Amino acid sequence: MQNKLTPFYQKLHRLYTLGSISSLLGWDQQVNLPKLAGDGRSEQLELMSALSHAEFTHPEFAALVDDLAQIQETLSANDRINVRETKRQLDRARKLPTEFVAEQAKASTIGYQVWSEARGKNDWQAVLPKLQHLVDLARREADLLGYEDHPYDALFDGYEPGGRIKEIQPLLLRLGEALSKMLPTLTARFADTPSPSGDYPEEVQQRFNSFLASKIGYDFERGRLDSTHHPFMTNLGVSDIRITTHYYRNDYLSSVYSTLHETGHALYELGFLPQHKGTPMGSAVSLGIHESQSRFWENLIGRSHAYCEFLHRALTEYFPAEARSLSPSVLWKMVNKVQPSLIRIEADEVSYSLHIIIRMLLEAQLVAGSLAVKDLPEAWNALYEKYLGIRPPDNRDGVMQDVHWYSGSIGYFPTYALGNLYGAMMLEALEQAQPDLWDRVRQGDCSNILRWLRTNVHELGMTFSGPQLIQRISGRSLSEEAFVRYLDKKFFAVMPQTA
Amino acid sequence: MQNKLTPFYQKLHRLYTLGSISSLLGWDQQVNLPKLAGDGRSEQLELMSALSHAEFTHPEFAALVDDLAQIQETLSANDRINVRETKRQLDRARKLPTEFVAEQAKASTIGYQVWSEARGKNDWQAVLPKLQHLVDLARREADLLGYEDHPYDALFDGYEPGGRIKEIQPLLLRLGEALSKMLPTLTARFADTPSPSGDYPEEVQQRFNSFLASKIGYDFERGRLDSTHHPFMTNLGVSDIRITTHYYRNDYLSSVYSTLHETGHALYELGFLPQHKGTPMGSAVSLGIHESQSRFWENLIGRSHAYCEFLHRALTEYFPAEARSLSPSVLWKMVNKVQPSLIRIEADEVSYSLHIIIRMLLEAQLVAGSLAVKDLPEAWNALYEKYLGIRPPDNRDGVMQDVHWYSGSIGYFPTYALGNLYGAMMLEALEQAQPDLWDRVRQGDCSNILRWLRTNVHELGMTFSGPQLIQRISGRSLSEEAFVRYLDKKFFAVMPQTA
Repeated sequence: MQNKLTPFYQKLHRLYTLGSISSLLGWDQQVNLPKLAGDGRSEQLELMSALSHAEFTHPEFAALVDDLAQIQETLSANDRINVRETKRQLDRARKLPTEFVAEQAKASTIGYQVWSEARGKNDWQAVLPKLQHLVDLARREADLLGYEDHPYDALFDGYEPGGRIKEIQPLLLRLGEALSKMLPTLTARFADTPSPSGDYPEEVQQRFNSFLASKIGYDFERGRLDSTHHPFMTNLGVSDIRITTHYYRNDYLSSVYSTLHETGHALYELGFLPQHKGTPMGSAVSLGIHESQSRFWENLIGRSHAYCEFLHRALTEYFPAEARSLSPSVLWKMVNKVQPSLIRIEADEVSYSLHIIIRMLLEAQLVAGSLAVKDLPEAWNALYEKYLGIRPPDNRDGVMQDVHWYSGSIGYFPTYALGNLYGAMMLEALEQAQPDLWDRVRQGDCSNILRWLRTNVHELGMTFSGPQLIQRISGRSLSEEAFVRYLDKKFFAVMPQTA
Repeated sequence: MQNKLTPFYQKLHRLYTLGSISSLLGWDQQVNLPKLAGDGRSEQLELMSALSHAEFTHPEFAALVDDLAQIQETLSANDRINVRETKRQLDRARKLPTEFVAEQAKASTIGYQVWSEARGKNDWQAVLPKLQHLVDLARREADLLGYEDHPYDALFDGYEPGGRIKEIQPLLLRLGEALSKMLPTLTARFADTPSPSGDYPEEVQQRFNSFLASKIGYDFERGRLDSTHHPFMTNLGVSDIRITTHYYRNDYLSSVYSTLHETGHALYELGFLPQHKGTPMGSAVSLGIHESQSRFWENLIGRSHAYCEFLHRALTEYFPAEARSLSPSVLWKMVNKVQPSLIRIEADEVSYSLHIIIRMLLEAQLVAGSLAVKDLPEAWNALYEKYLGIRPPDNRDGVMQDVHWYSGSIGYFPTYALGNLYGAMMLEALEQAQPDLWDRVRQGDCSNILRWLRTNVHELGMTFSGPQLIQRISGRSLSEEAFVRYLDKKFFAVMPQTA
């Protein structure tokens, strides 16, 4: 047995190293790539991806994993989990022929490139055939992977292991109903909220964001903060977890909250135990749980009144004029302004999940074949009218706003909304465990929060699935209730009396 | 035949892509790496290096190359060169067992780490056993590779294909004699040369260097300029050739000349023809020729009086106070100050090659076994006394000053001096071909120089060896004569009358 575990772990480490090299290629592509170097970088990424896939699905390794899976019961707890999860991922991977994986990777790259060009020009016709190809591939992928009820599950499962649309959809639709109900009242109440109106030099924003990220526990000796068009977090090694943000000279709050978001993702990856490097025990449960960590820090903590009081004090050092012109409560209002809008990534906490519900409904129909790709813009616009009461004037700010579908990520969106639900359930448990939580946040001390997340989430790796983990933390099944309670409390029970 | 060439080129492209990924890992290590991420990066570098070595020496590819080499005569000129050079590199590589390569890579990494720590502490005892191990490995490498006259040749050949110490050494010793003769007179004559004495913000130096690099032909759409402790150039793809420099706030000239140097390297790599991507026809002849390109721009052009006139005009925009306080001729004197010093990388054009001769003499003895590693510091100091008339007060600024030996690069140093010789021979040919050369340089127009280098050096890839190439350009065999003539003319015939 031991002599099967040794090569098993050696290969996992090797695969992790290969993956982290791909991540560096991706990071550098967003942060540093010279204008004309795109083709070369695509070749590098494709080669690494092919190498990883070939090594992961190599018959020898597959046989090893199958053998270990046979004797799972005899293994230690950690080994058992590592074997179980590797086997699960391998079972997915080996259902996909290498040529199919290559075709999909290529279509994704092309789709991304065409979308990047076409979005600014509002050119739906340019992306339509590429998206059609990607949807066709997704449908074929679902068939190759197999599913019980709905082809969507085969894809969704890749992002949220064990996720099933028949369980998620009713829950998110109930959430949608609750959110739609809150929306008009809150929109009216936030109508007069001011926005940042000064000039905020990037260099000061950088220092401010570095300070805020450090303050919630980000370790700059194990990572760095750079600037990219789209903010992201990436893992280049257990001690190389990098984040990026985007700076707007006239709005420091945008970079602050994207930094808190990406720092949340990074704290998760920095919190895996080093002895589990490169194994499922040192990996994220799912994208939903990952998103729970980013949205935890961005929203549940970062947009709380207590944090706004801390943030206001911090402003006095970095942007003193701004601090003088605002009260903590006005700052709270600014960072919580509820208003239905067209763009998901600019959405407030109330309308955000509505953007997700729309996407989930549409992608499930695309994958099932009950919605034609050519009819997508009209279906999109109709759902925006229904859920948010606004109709996109064009596709640029409508169906073409997000990169996901055009780069082949279909079945991904619900994980964002799941992150909200998981996060709110964690917060309820945390508030019970730490009665002085908000007093500490008010002082800028988030160390106890991080410690709690480390123990209850980060250090467990993939021991539990998302629903199991949240059951263990909260004693309840995954549902929308805690998140609705959270919003109710935030906006209807204790909304500060301002302006 | 065609069906052998296709997989041959496919594999070369794949190897190039693997190599360029390693280069990104190396670049990022110098430019961006978080403090605690070093171990992870070493693992990534080792994995990529092992992958490249395994693919390059794979029996199937080796058989293909051997087969193609058999029918070289039937191939087109380009194919023939690509097969010839690949076979040559492969013949070297397959003489080295994988375990030996791995041991050497590991010893180099450890040596580098220990040296990085020990140099500042002047701790020769710390590096001694590591260097001993690396010298032992180098001697074993020479035995594995084989040689006719001297084990040093086996190593030197890896940097300068075809290079033989019995040819190079007499030539460099003659050069050393000529340089030693010039040194005292020139040292006296430059004694009163001023140094930069202002405050030169890094941000302005950056813009200044970017301007100067662009001005000689560097394309920022195919590369970038960053800041690192040790400046370097690296190839991350045919359109991703990056350079770095190092900024000193009290000395803008240091970054200017290191930028010109690295830009020279980059212009070479940017000048390979795109259709030869990843093949010997799209690769550098040797490190000596590479160095001829960097030193060409740094010294032969960059430290000419004509360029100093241009540089002085450029200063009026970036550092106007500096420009006002200097004449072009004083600037010329500052950037050409001759003075024997302990540190190679700070040396002037006259003493520089003396530093190299010392290293060549020592490493040849180390490899031959006629000098014990433990006796190296004393031998080093004695040669500095002999050639430069100064004795290092400690090992930090003596035998421990350069990273090369401690990271396993033994047999590398002579290529620096060869770069001087090749460059001077090129300049003589260029001056003949372009009588208006210096008038144009004075105007800051170097486009004709680059065009000439493109045609006569860059675009030829590995068609010729270094000595063949220089014969073709100059009509003469490689020798020290042109370089000595160049220095004579520069310092004794037309030295501007200043101060």
